[in-house]
Amino acid sequence: MDQETDTVPRLWSATEALQKLRSRELTIEQYAASLLVRIKQRDDDVKAWAYLNPDAVMEQARALDRVPFEQRGPLHGLPVGIKDIILTKDMPTEHGSKIYKNDHPEIDAGSVMALRHAGCLIFGKTTTTEFAFSFIGPATRNAHSVNHTPGGSSSGSAAAVADFQIPIALGSQTKGSIVRPAAFNGVYGFKPTWQSITREGQKFCSPSVDTIGFFARSVADFELFADAFALNDYEESYFKEVKGSKFAICKPVHWDMAGQGTREAMDKAVELLRAHGAQVEELDLGPDFEKVVEWLNLIVKLEGATSLVPEYLQAKEQMDKTLAKGVEERRSVSRKAQLQAYDGLAALRPRFDKLAEGYTAVLAPSVLDEAPEGLGNTGDPVFASPWTALHVPVMNIPGFRGKTDMPVCVSLVAARLRDRHLLKVCEAVGGIFEKEGGWNR
Amino acid sequence: MDQETDTVPRLWSATEALQKLRSRELTIEQYAASLLVRIKQRDDDVKAWAYLNPDAVMEQARALDRVPFEQRGPLHGLPVGIKDIILTKDMPTEHGSKIYKNDHPEIDAGSVMALRHAGCLIFGKTTTTEFAFSFIGPATRNAHSVNHTPGGSSSGSAAAVADFQIPIALGSQTKGSIVRPAAFNGVYGFKPTWQSITREGQKFCSPSVDTIGFFARSVADFELFADAFALNDYEESYFKEVKGSKFAICKPVHWDMAGQGTREAMDKAVELLRAHGAQVEELDLGPDFEKVVEWLNLIVKLEGATSLVPEYLQAKEQMDKTLAKGVEERRSVSRKAQLQAYDGLAALRPRFDKLAEGYTAVLAPSVLDEAPEGLGNTGDPVFASPWTALHVPVMNIPGFRGKTDMPVCVSLVAARLRDRHLLKVCEAVGGIFEKEGGWNR
Repeated sequence: MDQETDTVPRLWSATEALQKLRSRELTIEQYAASLLVRIKQRDDDVKAWAYLNPDAVMEQARALDRVPFEQRGPLHGLPVGIKDIILTKDMPTEHGSKIYKNDHPEIDAGSVMALRHAGCLIFGKTTTTEFAFSFIGPATRNAHSVNHTPGGSSSGSAAAVADFQIPIALGSQTKGSIVRPAAFNGVYGFKPTWQSITREGQKFCSPSVDTIGFFARSVADFELFADAFALNDYEESYFKEVKGSKFAICKPVHWDMAGQGTREAMDKAVELLRAHGAQVEELDLGPDFEKVVEWLNLIVKLEGATSLVPEYLQAKEQMDKTLAKGVEERRSVSRKAQLQAYDGLAALRPRFDKLAEGYTAVLAPSVLDEAPEGLGNTGDPVFASPWTALHVPVMNIPGFRGKTDMPVCVSLVAARLRDRHLLKVCEAVGGIFEKEGGWNR
Repeated sequence: MDQETDTVPRLWSATEALQKLRSRELTIEQYAASLLVRIKQRDDDVKAWAYLNPDAVMEQARALDRVPFEQRGPLHGLPVGIKDIILTKDMPTEHGSKIYKNDHPEIDAGSVMALRHAGCLIFGKTTTTEFAFSFIGPATRNAHSVNHTPGGSSSGSAAAVADFQIPIALGSQTKGSIVRPAAFNGVYGFKPTWQSITREGQKFCSPSVDTIGFFARSVADFELFADAFALNDYEESYFKEVKGSKFAICKPVHWDMAGQGTREAMDKAVELLRAHGAQVEELDLGPDFEKVVEWLNLIVKLEGATSLVPEYLQAKEQMDKTLAKGVEERRSVSRKAQLQAYDGLAALRPRFDKLAEGYTAVLAPSVLDEAPEGLGNTGDPVFASPWTALHVPVMNIPGFRGKTDMPVCVSLVAARLRDRHLLKVCEAVGGIFEKEGGWNR
């Protein structure tokens, strides 16, 4: 932590903030107030919050300050942003949908229960595209440019973390809804192995792949959440350092869509890994993996439609037209095609694990390029989609810069249930990319 | 409908009740009142309800009566019991757990939203074992004997339907939580293909297999719900009649555990099918399917533990000790064993489909035997488990009688996404078994 960082609370990572709170350098109230100041200054530009009640935040902060130190949980006082498809008993949950305007059931999602138990300050709700399913952007802007999309569907969580409004936030990914906004905003985004964290109490999109995950500005912060949610690899990671490690670079089936920023970032990433003593090999997944994205898209289309049947029945006129059409068209897919998509993906999962286990981690592109201009569309999730489909952990790592000076990121991927291993690798690799990749917040 | 049935509302199936309501033979208020009378008479013996507010039921019934006929949905006025792990905005949801005593978030599960939209009268909440995960019975008794378990975890839904307290009810199945209580109480129980109906807003047990389903006293009633939830086979069923059809009889890997009642019922079922002109062949799934139940149990153990982490963190002392222990022990399973269970089951699903597609339907045992005596344990789900693991639709069909005069049932199973086909087959086969199998309510 350099001197400036040390004295400006909003610049702290979650890990740093917790150290300060524990060492009594400042109170939770002071820390929360400093974030609220930042949000007040920047909210007109970024618009990351679907719900934020500063009075309630301060009241919660003071209540947390009153808890004796010896009774505090491991994350006591840590402010967290919650994607607005995740239920919170003390705030409305609108799912980015007019149907749920001001809807406020008094119930916490399982993930929020676990964070409250650890002592977190549930700060506010971050914006999402409609039902985390639509690609129409919310009002939120990219933390680095009011003219660029922050990505989606976890738009607000990524932008708020990137803009130093909150140290850490929850999101969810069905195709690329964590990796994409993390990449467009230049922060870390982590989607763990499918089904590692309970998704109870969050809006369903496609239950076969929906995964809860996190945004932060430091990989160490993910370790805190991995502990809070008891993520478990069941095997010790063998990783020690980048030097002597063997990475794969995997250019997925739609690699021809990659823009200049992503191509250069991938090249630079390989160069940096090699410069730090790692081997990097090309990993060709072969023709059997060519349908991964197509199959995922089919499953998400069908399961998403099933998930939205209740809303469609009650208020289809208040839904994004594309989503309503999806519900209507869900019968257009043949039984054979559906089962092929389910069974095809299921058969590829152990095969990818086996390939990935031959490497320390697999380097892959996060998004097509820098965040596109405009707020209408949240961008293409095609490069993040294979990893969601394969149920494997994936981390977006910042560190590179595109031709219009927006951030460009890459991903590291590991086999299923290698989440803690991936965190260790990303901490080392992220340190290199952030320092030498050319991007600077 | 014979004469007695015709004049006693509680004896009507959902289909019959809706006809009476539509033809204005009685009001929804009158129908609801007649069910409340039955419940009042029988509740001390059966104890099927976790929450029931007669005044609220009558108020809802009167409100539904006031809706003009031309504005009514297809299920207008139909009383439905809801398993108490499914959220209802106008009633508490306790999940069979002390932790959620009187908990009342004002939110409907997706399934309840769809039923309300169709016009259902959401009648009350039926009992469940703790989190639909424990095997310790709730206070509920079997509809046919106060000394016998009603089965679980959907105990109240099965007992209330069997006892003519409600025509139809929602339940859920993770191993055998629909088939088992349906079998023990001698009613129809239907678990559709996994992921056909949104499970949003219901307690998670094991999301990889959890499936919502129904209890009724008539297969035609399931057609009503299949329409309300838009179940879809994507292909027309070829089934016309039992005569000339080809059934398989499948004795699963633990068949040696089957008791006399189940053995005799299976023999009788084969005999009746043949007597009605069907072929019945033995289907041996072979050694590759031997681990299906073991793998399911492992997945349910691990995913169940993940689902209960939030409750464990907040109030483990209020949990069933076995469930708390499950959370603690969830790290005892190796990564290899976990992935083998996921990938092993996934690989078997298309293989079972292919086998099942060679037959009109597959006949299988529902439970070990008649309902066991005592209320402490809800019985063994081993015979229903393979079909939940394989994601296929399964129906419990009543019709047979055990040696202590309790009902004994069998199951019919079809390939994935053959739900509507299975309903047609079960309507024909159920008619035969009910008439000639020897069981009479």
